[in-house]
Amino acid sequence: MVYSRQKAGMSETGSSFSGAEPFTLAVDGMGGDGGPEVVVAGLAIAADRHPGARVLLIGDEATLRQELARHPKAAAICTIRPANSAIPMDMKPTAALRVRDSSMRLSMDAVAQGEAQGVVSAGNSGAMLALAKIVVKTLPGVSRPAMAAISPTLKGDVVMLDLGANVACDWRNLVEFAVMGEAFAKAVLGLPAPTIGLLNVGSEELKGDEKLRQAADVLRNSSLAAQFHGFVEGHDITAGTTDVVVTDGFTGNVALKTGEGALKMAFVLLRQVFRSGLLAKLGYLLVRPGLERMREWLDPRRYNGAVFVGLNGVVVKSHGGTDAEGFASAVDVAMDMVTHRFNESIREQLSRLDTLAAMRSGAEKEHPAVAAVS
Amino acid sequence: MVYSRQKAGMSETGSSFSGAEPFTLAVDGMGGDGGPEVVVAGLAIAADRHPGARVLLIGDEATLRQELARHPKAAAICTIRPANSAIPMDMKPTAALRVRDSSMRLSMDAVAQGEAQGVVSAGNSGAMLALAKIVVKTLPGVSRPAMAAISPTLKGDVVMLDLGANVACDWRNLVEFAVMGEAFAKAVLGLPAPTIGLLNVGSEELKGDEKLRQAADVLRNSSLAAQFHGFVEGHDITAGTTDVVVTDGFTGNVALKTGEGALKMAFVLLRQVFRSGLLAKLGYLLVRPGLERMREWLDPRRYNGAVFVGLNGVVVKSHGGTDAEGFASAVDVAMDMVTHRFNESIREQLSRLDTLAAMRSGAEKEHPAVAAVS
Repeated sequence: MVYSRQKAGMSETGSSFSGAEPFTLAVDGMGGDGGPEVVVAGLAIAADRHPGARVLLIGDEATLRQELARHPKAAAICTIRPANSAIPMDMKPTAALRVRDSSMRLSMDAVAQGEAQGVVSAGNSGAMLALAKIVVKTLPGVSRPAMAAISPTLKGDVVMLDLGANVACDWRNLVEFAVMGEAFAKAVLGLPAPTIGLLNVGSEELKGDEKLRQAADVLRNSSLAAQFHGFVEGHDITAGTTDVVVTDGFTGNVALKTGEGALKMAFVLLRQVFRSGLLAKLGYLLVRPGLERMREWLDPRRYNGAVFVGLNGVVVKSHGGTDAEGFASAVDVAMDMVTHRFNESIREQLSRLDTLAAMRSGAEKEHPAVAAVS
Repeated sequence: MVYSRQKAGMSETGSSFSGAEPFTLAVDGMGGDGGPEVVVAGLAIAADRHPGARVLLIGDEATLRQELARHPKAAAICTIRPANSAIPMDMKPTAALRVRDSSMRLSMDAVAQGEAQGVVSAGNSGAMLALAKIVVKTLPGVSRPAMAAISPTLKGDVVMLDLGANVACDWRNLVEFAVMGEAFAKAVLGLPAPTIGLLNVGSEELKGDEKLRQAADVLRNSSLAAQFHGFVEGHDITAGTTDVVVTDGFTGNVALKTGEGALKMAFVLLRQVFRSGLLAKLGYLLVRPGLERMREWLDPRRYNGAVFVGLNGVVVKSHGGTDAEGFASAVDVAMDMVTHRFNESIREQLSRLDTLAAMRSGAEKEHPAVAAVS
């Protein structure tokens, strides 16, 4: 039962793409530790799932042509656009902004100019965020883009954000993250009315700091009130208490990596158990089918593809160290978001929140103490 | 191999207590969801491990007498001290401070008056921290006490702090947490020179916010420099990259609960795998011995007993929902800290850091920008 929920896109994108609208993704061919080899192999897998999609593959022409020759399925959906340089994984964002002809920059340009609806890159995250803000630009009404991704829980999947785009946040950012996370859960998980939790050190209303209490107060009085569950704690993430977990980028990044680390530890210890003797090895053979399903369900590659939400286009970051299967998952996420008109859903919610925000600004002018903490 | 490291106390306290110095613990008999029944059953288990210990058991006399009658081993080490009231689990700290005759308050009084060297309670954490600050008092040179505990990793155990005593911290707090965490790892894990990591969103020197970079800078130039590993990330906690992980109370609380939640999810899924058919059930029987060892190693009860460090006495908080075995672990932790003269080790390090802090204060006066962020 646990394994039953499908990502929305897995079942729906196929039909969307057989329709009249051909969507185009710009793909940074040079990003990631595995470079063009992994990217193109990933596109070959994605091509099967999204036969109607078009990909603008950007990078070193000779290398990309060579890789496409080895993957005819990828070649069938790709058009190469040459780029003279690539952003190294350790380049600082400020330096990356100065490189005008990088494969990452040209991928963002394609979205900004309307040639593509989304971009996928396995490159340098800091450079990606900086370029996305400058080139693709922030959505009107959003103060700061956030990084969102899906993780496994006992009840299905959870959307968590921010995962590191903003190490410090105020209550406005958290409220916007809630709006964007809700739209993300609708688009990528296919949920009609996702529930939202605000990550805190306790579930009581008085826990945490002022910005958390402010954000909770705004959400409780917003158009999302019925979906807002209140505060959740660390263990609620994997318990699946809510469909969306909202937090600042520092806490979200630490929580994501801590959870992944704990699961990795469990699998390493489990491997030792199964190798601890002849009987254990035999036992392993008997439980292997179920164990493989469990491993697949928790497989980080299945959850690859973090999204920078709050931009004028779909910007998806694949893990730099992923393989072809993982890169294909990142393409899935981008396709889901493009086809589900993710940003229109955000715009609608934000305009509803505008009235509320205006009221709150008024209140702050009357109570300087409230303004001081936000 | 993974299972080989023992908590220091498991092997050493037995001999310590057969010596000339009889240590006394004050135990809040009324705290926790299970109340006196669990506390006294836990003391019966602890009595076997610490035969030379004395316990001042504080709470409702009739109830405690009744429980001790059922546990002669506990009765052999306990003296009852009557208390007229108990702090409810949901009472606010400010209200708890006004109750003069609670079992928790009288337990703290026993430490403050030198009748006991440490206190253990499974009661209300917020009330415990507030009472400990007022009654047991903060150690000279420490700005704020922190909550520390041990967690399992792939390489042994890790000490993590702060786990929620301070939701907001400055660089001074983080440096003090590092000092106290190092002393804690020496006392409870028995490590001669524990390594220290500062939790961040990346391991590069420029990651994170100003308070993290400041704290790292101070530690790199302190007497702990050789043990300071620099920044660590969420996945480093369970990887066992360092023996001590230092963070603010908000992040630490979320990370601890997120990691526990992820492990719980792994065990729930594993149980489903082993129940998924006849062959899987047979397989389970074959791997059970190894699996039980793994479960024991990761058992939260084994890691029960969070310590409020930075106080003029040993103050240990047991999880409110624990069982007798878990409560006995919390008693182990208190005994380890009392016998290893934990606070003397902290005092020594802090005095060495004093010179450094004085230098830094001087620097801040010259550079107001530095002072502003700390």
